Amino acid sequence: MEGVVAEKPVIKVAAICGSLRKASFNRSLLRSAIQICYESIKGMEIEYIDIAALPMQNTDLEVDGTYPPTVEAFRRKICEADGILFASPECNYSISAPLKNVIDWASRPPNMWANKAAAILSMAGGGQGRRCQYHLRQIGVYLDLHFINKPEFFLNGWHPPAKFDSDGKLIDLAIQEELKKVLLSLQAFTLRLQGKNLKDKSVTESPPLKHE
Amino acid sequence: MEGVVAEKPVIKVAAICGSLRKASFNRSLLRSAIQICYESIKGMEIEYIDIAALPMQNTDLEVDGTYPPTVEAFRRKICEADGILFASPECNYSISAPLKNVIDWASRPPNMWANKAAAILSMAGGGQGRRCQYHLRQIGVYLDLHFINKPEFFLNGWHPPAKFDSDGKLIDLAIQEELKKVLLSLQAFTLRLQGKNLKDKSVTESPPLKHE
Amino acid sequence: MEGVVAEKPVIKVAAICGSLRKASFNRSLLRSAIQICYESIKGMEIEYIDIAALPMQNTDLEVDGTYPPTVEAFRRKICEADGILFASPECNYSISAPLKNVIDWASRPPNMWANKAAAILSMAGGGQGRRCQYHLRQIGVYLDLHFINKPEFFLNGWHPPAKFDSDGKLIDLAIQEELKKVLLSLQAFTLRLQGKNLKDKSVTESPPLKHE
Amino acid sequence: MEGVVAEKPVIKVAAICGSLRKASFNRSLLRSAIQICYESIKGMEIEYIDIAALPMQNTDLEVDGTYPPTVEAFRRKICEADGILFASPECNYSISAPLKNVIDWASRPPNMWANKAAAILSMAGGGQGRRCQYHLRQIGVYLDLHFINKPEFFLNGWHPPAKFDSDGKLIDLAIQEELKKVLLSLQAFTLRLQGKNLKDKSVTESPPLKHE
Repeated sequence: MEGVVAEKPVIKVAAICGSLRKASFNRSLLRSAIQICYESIKGMEIEYIDIAALPMQNTDLEVDGTYPPTVEAFRRKICEADGILFASPECNYSISAPLKNVIDWASRPPNMWANKAAAILSMAGGGQGRRCQYHLRQIGVYLDLHFINKPEFFLNGWHPPAKFDSDGKLIDLAIQEELKKVLLSLQAFTLRLQGKNLKDKSVTESPPLKHE
Repeated sequence: MEGVVAEKPVIKVAAICGSLRKASFNRSLLRSAIQICYESIKGMEIEYIDIAALPMQNTDLEVDGTYPPTVEAFRRKICEADGILFASPECNYSISAPLKNVIDWASRPPNMWANKAAAILSMAGGGQGRRCQYHLRQIGVYLDLHFINKPEFFLNGWHPPAKFDSDGKLIDLAIQEELKKVLLSLQAFTLRLQGKNLKDKSVTESPPLKHE
Repeated sequence: MEGVVAEKPVIKVAAICGSLRKASFNRSLLRSAIQICYESIKGMEIEYIDIAALPMQNTDLEVDGTYPPTVEAFRRKICEADGILFASPECNYSISAPLKNVIDWASRPPNMWANKAAAILSMAGGGQGRRCQYHLRQIGVYLDLHFINKPEFFLNGWHPPAKFDSDGKLIDLAIQEELKKVLLSLQAFTLRLQGKNLKDKSVTESPPLKHE
Repeated sequence: MEGVVAEKPVIKVAAICGSLRKASFNRSLLRSAIQICYESIKGMEIEYIDIAALPMQNTDLEVDGTYPPTVEAFRRKICEADGILFASPECNYSISAPLKNVIDWASRPPNMWANKAAAILSMAGGGQGRRCQYHLRQIGVYLDLHFINKPEFFLNGWHPPAKFDSDGKLIDLAIQEELKKVLLSLQAFTLRLQGKNLKDKSVTESPPLKHE
């Protein structure tokens, strides 16, 4: 019995929030994703990676092939991850500057993003982040990231009823369910790219992902 | 011996040219790809799919859930393919109308593109097709196509020396080599998505694909 | 009095629908725009340009620098227009094939789109056309079209309550008002690009366009 | 005579470089643009705006509707400009983080970019910045910037012969001429949007801008 559990592939996912704002709803989405994963998805661990301390990208800060310590630490975290979970606000119809900043730092040689699976969450206003996610996907071509196609996750968090409580916790059950589907899809795609298969029945029995 | 050959996974690739022009250089690229594949890549077959006969997309032409015969035939070809090889001219900074047309037809329910691997070739002028390929990749998110990231293939066929002979045959050896790398990457990614591995040593020993 | 009326600049707008479907809601939007313009906007005329008869774009159909008759007729209409009003469905996250087709035909030398003002309406599902409009704007860079920035018009026509009656007529008053703002913005921008100013007080007194 | 000179409209252009690197070739392009403008374009002044001191965008840094001092200073410069000249490196197929950062800061209410004319220069590798410029243009829709369509400026600075001398000064005469055409186009479009016309014959007599 225990042997079976031990064989179950475990993948590590790095969660990155594009907003530095303390009360960021995008970070709330990641917190919720971490909890959902912990409680109900076997074989995947999501770690939140803080990006607030990285300096603005500037190759003049690279000395003898080394990066500033906060950049090195971030790059190591990306290197160790099997998959990436981005939570990206939409700022002026594209991704945020802090998110672009860490993407560019970790792409410096050797490119740490290469060949990983990825998924995007967006909590935004009117277009719900629809415009920024395709910029991130184009960036991903050069990074050599492989994004899941389905399901896409867009959330207009401003529409009533409230999706988050006063502590910024995601309380909408339907959205939690959507979020879980993204995580399961990311897990399945990560394993598929790694040439592994899901052993855990509870995961493979998840309902098929529908088109939007 | 024969047993080994029989085990080798064979994938089928549908090749689609976005230009209807008889002397299209993009079609020349596909002809060259087919020949390269035939001569030097085991386990993959590329079939050219003609798209000239399909009517302009219009859901009024769908009757009782059936499509016009030329559309049905095209959809069947896509359905049978494991991977897709697009040769896309750049028209006004996006893909061509004939290419968009067949993409839209084959996406009608049930979506025939879903879950396949894909690669893009572009022969174009100044930007060498750089602008249109990202439109095609965004379209692919909804289609649920998985594009290879590397290598990207862009060709400015107008720059001297001539890349094609008077019959439109690709004669530039370096470009043939680039083209072969795209095909090997498409093959490897198709098998990876299918949970299979390359058995053929000559393929797996191909040099790693470099960043542009 | 009459002198004042005579001085009022009159601009001509060509309205193009990206869908060939008889019951197209995007065409309904254009019909509504034409009526709104006729009833309440002075100095602008919108003409619906039918695109169903144009053949699939293929430069082999160009003989001695002439285009097929239906293409010539379409090109003339675009040439005569001061501004363009596109109604674009979103097909697989981009514009439709019929729309791309006529764009490409009228861009053939001499490019008929050059230096005109333009606006986009989209009636679509989930993303309400948010993804396709930016493809059209990128295409517009090469065409040398100048799109208005504000207001953008996106409509999810499937959400209740019904926006259209059983004849496909736009019946939602708030959306009619949004549509009118787009038309006024297109008029003002067209005149601005032509170095003219609005003389008609009722137009200049329209409320300023807000951000989404 | 002097009266004529005094009547000549003078427009102010803010020049922004997306790279913080000291030896940035994109900044070299801006230096060259400033010199060309000073020496041979009447009625336009270009001012280089340094962006190195702005903090990473974070709305938590906004206190009682005020911005950090360096942000306020930058916003004032943008407010005073009639037009914007971006020099944007291409980082992972999109614009750089420092550029996105200042764009987002100056877009905070009231949006300082609104209704201005703009142009983009890109010095980059393979694609010569072709991929990043369309991201910037999409961002510009929300900012309400009006970009010139022609000529587009892309430079592959790495191809021999050297385009810059050892001090980073642009020495290629043909590229200087291309750069001047961009500036003249930006000037003409700025005035056109402002409802003014060029009085200076030497400017209006510049050759028409050709398609790429």
